[in-house]
Amino acid sequence: MLAQRLIERKRDGGRLEAGEWRALTLAYAAGHVPDYQMAAFLMACFLRGLDRGETAGLTEAMLASGDRLHLADLGLPRVDKHSTGGVGDKVSLVLAPLVASLGVAVPMMSGRGLGHTGGTLDKLDSIPGFRSSLTLAEAKTQIAAIGCALIGQTKEIAPADRKMYALRDATATVESIPLIAASIMSKKLAEDLSGLVLDIKRGSGSFLPQLERDLELAEAMIRLGSDHGCPVVALITAMDRPLGRACGNALEVEEAIHTLKGEGPPDLLEVTYALGVEMLLIAGVAKTADEARRQMEKAIGTGKAAERFQQIIEAQGGNPGVVDDPAVLPQAAECELFSAPRRGFVARVEPRAIGRGIIALGGGRAKMDDIVDPSVGFVITARPGDWVEQGEPLATVFAGDRAGVETGKHALRQSIIIADEADPPLPLVSHRVTSQGVTVVERP
Amino acid sequence: MLAQRLIERKRDGGRLEAGEWRALTLAYAAGHVPDYQMAAFLMACFLRGLDRGETAGLTEAMLASGDRLHLADLGLPRVDKHSTGGVGDKVSLVLAPLVASLGVAVPMMSGRGLGHTGGTLDKLDSIPGFRSSLTLAEAKTQIAAIGCALIGQTKEIAPADRKMYALRDATATVESIPLIAASIMSKKLAEDLSGLVLDIKRGSGSFLPQLERDLELAEAMIRLGSDHGCPVVALITAMDRPLGRACGNALEVEEAIHTLKGEGPPDLLEVTYALGVEMLLIAGVAKTADEARRQMEKAIGTGKAAERFQQIIEAQGGNPGVVDDPAVLPQAAECELFSAPRRGFVARVEPRAIGRGIIALGGGRAKMDDIVDPSVGFVITARPGDWVEQGEPLATVFAGDRAGVETGKHALRQSIIIADEADPPLPLVSHRVTSQGVTVVERP
Repeated sequence: MLAQRLIERKRDGGRLEAGEWRALTLAYAAGHVPDYQMAAFLMACFLRGLDRGETAGLTEAMLASGDRLHLADLGLPRVDKHSTGGVGDKVSLVLAPLVASLGVAVPMMSGRGLGHTGGTLDKLDSIPGFRSSLTLAEAKTQIAAIGCALIGQTKEIAPADRKMYALRDATATVESIPLIAASIMSKKLAEDLSGLVLDIKRGSGSFLPQLERDLELAEAMIRLGSDHGCPVVALITAMDRPLGRACGNALEVEEAIHTLKGEGPPDLLEVTYALGVEMLLIAGVAKTADEARRQMEKAIGTGKAAERFQQIIEAQGGNPGVVDDPAVLPQAAECELFSAPRRGFVARVEPRAIGRGIIALGGGRAKMDDIVDPSVGFVITARPGDWVEQGEPLATVFAGDRAGVETGKHALRQSIIIADEADPPLPLVSHRVTSQGVTVVERP
Repeated sequence: MLAQRLIERKRDGGRLEAGEWRALTLAYAAGHVPDYQMAAFLMACFLRGLDRGETAGLTEAMLASGDRLHLADLGLPRVDKHSTGGVGDKVSLVLAPLVASLGVAVPMMSGRGLGHTGGTLDKLDSIPGFRSSLTLAEAKTQIAAIGCALIGQTKEIAPADRKMYALRDATATVESIPLIAASIMSKKLAEDLSGLVLDIKRGSGSFLPQLERDLELAEAMIRLGSDHGCPVVALITAMDRPLGRACGNALEVEEAIHTLKGEGPPDLLEVTYALGVEMLLIAGVAKTADEARRQMEKAIGTGKAAERFQQIIEAQGGNPGVVDDPAVLPQAAECELFSAPRRGFVARVEPRAIGRGIIALGGGRAKMDDIVDPSVGFVITARPGDWVEQGEPLATVFAGDRAGVETGKHALRQSIIIADEADPPLPLVSHRVTSQGVTVVERP
């Protein structure tokens, strides 16, 4: 009865009170409200929207459906980063150990890849032996010891969100700003953070390609953080092309390791530093952006950041030798260069086509239970705006067999567009959003 | 994949083609599309609407999900009546035998009561032995023999509609004109009709209280009929007060029998004749409304109509003695008069309060699996606009025990409003809608 009444009200454009969000969400998590009622309700939410109070009510309810980490007694600032996801986005793998090495606790809870975007957990899985399914108690012990744990959303955290997200995925109700904001924030608030930094991707390869929608999402999450005393800062970053060069699970781990050693591609390093600056400022570990950046450069230069990654891998059962020798990662059976079919400017490197190419190679998921081949993917050296001659190498395909090589080359032909002119790509970091408002970031 | 793509399209205001309606509906009926996806889809339909072609596509798909009656070889005109439901609406029980006695085949498929409105099948169930669950083959044999069968929606007819209706009922997606129109017409078109007459109730006790929505529904169903070569005529009739005096299953059967014998309440007789005129005209059995009315008055006057009801009851296993002696119907243990608490005009007899009162007495259903006590209900003699003195009897409560009597009197106090003034009630039959348009009916 409750569910029907609430569906009806939302359907007709009405609003739910905090107690109603809680009752409905907990009843759903407990199986007392069936999937079909929740599906109708979520579609009504999608089409009618949620106001600020309702978004907070849903977030609170999902948070209340599970346990939380309790990290305040560690006596450390606790800051996490969350990205809305993209292609080639291995920032977490660099940023978490880097910031943890500077005295910030980073309880980083990540997801798996679905659709064209990758997932941090899948990348970590390519490290032999690595185990991301820690309990909350294990995660806390590890964070106390080495400042960081890289884990998945455990069954203990926001189970209502977990169940609701799977349902949204099957019922075309994912792309709703309030539902996305509540889903992300219910998990992040369960991490007992003293601050959160968001990396909101914009552009054709992102989840929400339009800038206005990205800003709207940033603002919704910042408000939810404020409501819980958790300061949130968001950067809007470019996802009109892949980030860095490597796209594919093991390939991205390898690139992250190079980056931690100071040998990463400039765009990846730039986004990592920009987000790291925000984390260190919010943590109070640095007073200014310049100071924060110097601290990070030093941690990379001295090997401290890479060493911290090694400690994390070891603590989570992975082979720590990977940091010294990335060749212990799974290696693709076949690899082949892909060359420019004509001379001209690289007009686009389309991330969605690359992401779909990784799935076609077996390195991503179309369905949640697909098995992932960690070794496959692309290393793309061509950047939008580059001038290239015909026959010049643009990328390398890594595949499980010869047929895969052809599949991969096909994807690259779809993705890398050479033309007589090239529009400038989006600025790497374009906007900074805080509870004070939006500022446009000056290009460095 | 199909379902998700179609949900997404409808969510974004797009339309489905006939083949897509068919694929989705049949996949749902077969269990290949889960309830939760259909629930999200139906909510998107509710909020985005369906255009004419889509409504036809859904109707066609639900029709195609099951079998049909094949009556054309009987060589008789085949006409049914469908009502959107109300309180005290026992028209079907009078009209079906009456029109069948005049040479029209009436394959009447009815429903059970749910919520505040009654259902013809529940009324028939109060006749000892009566069996409404005929197979299509049994129904056809009976119609060939005596021109009429009073049956429920068998499992063979439009199973997709059956499943979808149950889902809509649980997900607050019932009150959508195109979904209602498609649901009704998919069943009616399966009856192989040469014509259909609709009784669309308006006013506070009806399913869609607003006249504009009633006209919209009538027009949607008329269009669906036209698309299938089945002429449809709709009358808009009053449901701002109960129809006739009896409200409750056995009480209504008794009143229907009296009406078939020429002793019915004038309003019930008037609505029955108005609908009967349309049925006889559409069947080609009468040339003018006057002629049709004279035929019906004669069938009632000679006892032919009552006799036909007796034959139908006998053919379906019921005790035919009920027509001669309604006392064979279940009798309530307790009955008590309800008197006017003050003098004044009867300003309202609110059907919803009466309908809810019947449920409270155990004579209706709040849930589909509730068991119904056929004997309980009300006989309400007070009509809106009547002048009454304090203490004058307005109604009789029929209940299973003393507590029920109190429950019933409470419902009557909620329902029958006495005031110093009374607005005129709605005209009994206010509009006639055909494929040619809407005409306002002159009061007789």
